[in-house]
Amino acid sequence: MNARIQSVTGQSEPGSHTWKLTLAYDGTDFHGWQVQPGKPTIQGELQAALGRVTGETPLPQGSGRTDAGVHALGQVASFPLSAPIPAENLLLALNRTLPPPIRILAAERAQDPTFHARHSTVAKTYEYRILRAEKCSPFFARYVYTFSWPLNLDALHQSAHIFLGEHDFRSFAASDPDLASRNLENGNELMERVKVPVASTVRTIFASEWQERDTEDGRLLVYRVRGNGFLHHMVRNLVGTMLDAGRGRLGVDEIHRIFAARSRSEAGFTAPGRGLFLHSVEY
Amino acid sequence: MNARIQSVTGQSEPGSHTWKLTLAYDGTDFHGWQVQPGKPTIQGELQAALGRVTGETPLPQGSGRTDAGVHALGQVASFPLSAPIPAENLLLALNRTLPPPIRILAAERAQDPTFHARHSTVAKTYEYRILRAEKCSPFFARYVYTFSWPLNLDALHQSAHIFLGEHDFRSFAASDPDLASRNLENGNELMERVKVPVASTVRTIFASEWQERDTEDGRLLVYRVRGNGFLHHMVRNLVGTMLDAGRGRLGVDEIHRIFAARSRSEAGFTAPGRGLFLHSVEY
Repeated sequence: MNARIQSVTGQSEPGSHTWKLTLAYDGTDFHGWQVQPGKPTIQGELQAALGRVTGETPLPQGSGRTDAGVHALGQVASFPLSAPIPAENLLLALNRTLPPPIRILAAERAQDPTFHARHSTVAKTYEYRILRAEKCSPFFARYVYTFSWPLNLDALHQSAHIFLGEHDFRSFAASDPDLASRNLENGNELMERVKVPVASTVRTIFASEWQERDTEDGRLLVYRVRGNGFLHHMVRNLVGTMLDAGRGRLGVDEIHRIFAARSRSEAGFTAPGRGLFLHSVEY
Repeated sequence: MNARIQSVTGQSEPGSHTWKLTLAYDGTDFHGWQVQPGKPTIQGELQAALGRVTGETPLPQGSGRTDAGVHALGQVASFPLSAPIPAENLLLALNRTLPPPIRILAAERAQDPTFHARHSTVAKTYEYRILRAEKCSPFFARYVYTFSWPLNLDALHQSAHIFLGEHDFRSFAASDPDLASRNLENGNELMERVKVPVASTVRTIFASEWQERDTEDGRLLVYRVRGNGFLHHMVRNLVGTMLDAGRGRLGVDEIHRIFAARSRSEAGFTAPGRGLFLHSVEY
């Protein structure tokens, strides 16, 4: 089977099986999920590992792309394989050959051969972790955003509540027009270079809340958000906007105005990637 | 004041103060403590940061050198500075300019102007962390040695007990003859290139024990050892030898024979650097 054809269609062909992998990664040392020539990426490492283990190099499709520095506790990837390898063997062999910052947590053949890690998604959950301290332990620095300014927790909780439900999140999407097609969350290299109609920026948020967690390295504020899809930079922009509200730079009520403006420049800053974790994907 | 002279003598000169810094670091992305041309090291980063903050570039003397990949929870460094900078300002300014994997935990002027982070040491404590699991979380992989073989914990405890007290630890020191002078723990670049009399390999161990710790990423076995000094690779060789005893590859009683042999080839393997933490230094 021709790997190049596989990587374009991402579909299972006769005699092959569709696989579903669940994986965790520390995104710090990678240039995000998506393959880029000459740069280490999660998708590229996974494709190369599949090649070493099975001799086939399908391009694994992720549930969505994560940016540079963003982590995953439960990313999901799908791809076709012809090799009749037992699932447990594939899992062990991939973990032996992948770099330690990427671990396969589960490997299974998809029941439905049309399963696609991105198209089949029902909901995704992200977490954003903020350390409330002046100083961050060297062993924590890759995994949190250290934010020591005073914060009004009520304003954070109220802001998070406003995001619930169906909204046009255009104001909270990356503003770079060249990146508009990324907001489809299903663009590939080709689509990004071709002008495509701007996709809908309406998403539905099912859960949106702040939690506090005590750790040996200090108190964490964790924002957890579950929705049917997320625009590029959306979680990081929601967090930046809520932190602006928590600091009193922005009234909580102004978030309604930001939604209405449908302009990235109205919302708050983009919180750094290192605090963001793709928590889980539902199908 | 001439930085080159300072870096050779490591002594405070008239008008300068001797400083004592306590620092933590994630050693993964550094080539160990000691400055090396063209490579990132903890000592080099600290010297450069001192230069940016104070305009002076004394070479900080550590309590001992840590190897590549080895971490510190409480390394101590000393150096002279002429600048009359308040301690709190030095701490904050260094943390602003140092890379996030290195954090200054405390900064103070030494009461005794002859204080030297290495020569003044009374005791040092190291920890070695082993993850008892098949698979290591990507967020833990830099900080533990994953060891999933069955282990006889009694053999670990008995082995650790044998190391207590004063012994000639030559069998547990790095065997590379060119590195012999490193075992002085006070060699500098010059000393390492010149043939110096082989220093004593006798050390006294005050505490040596295994602890178990449960974490969200699995059960840890932690070896904690406190002594008046440690030879190059000594803790990692003690751990490798104890793991060999725990796996039944080596009888616990054979450790007495290893001591007597005074030969590196008799002891167990060198456990990887990533599990090792310099825990604290006493003066």
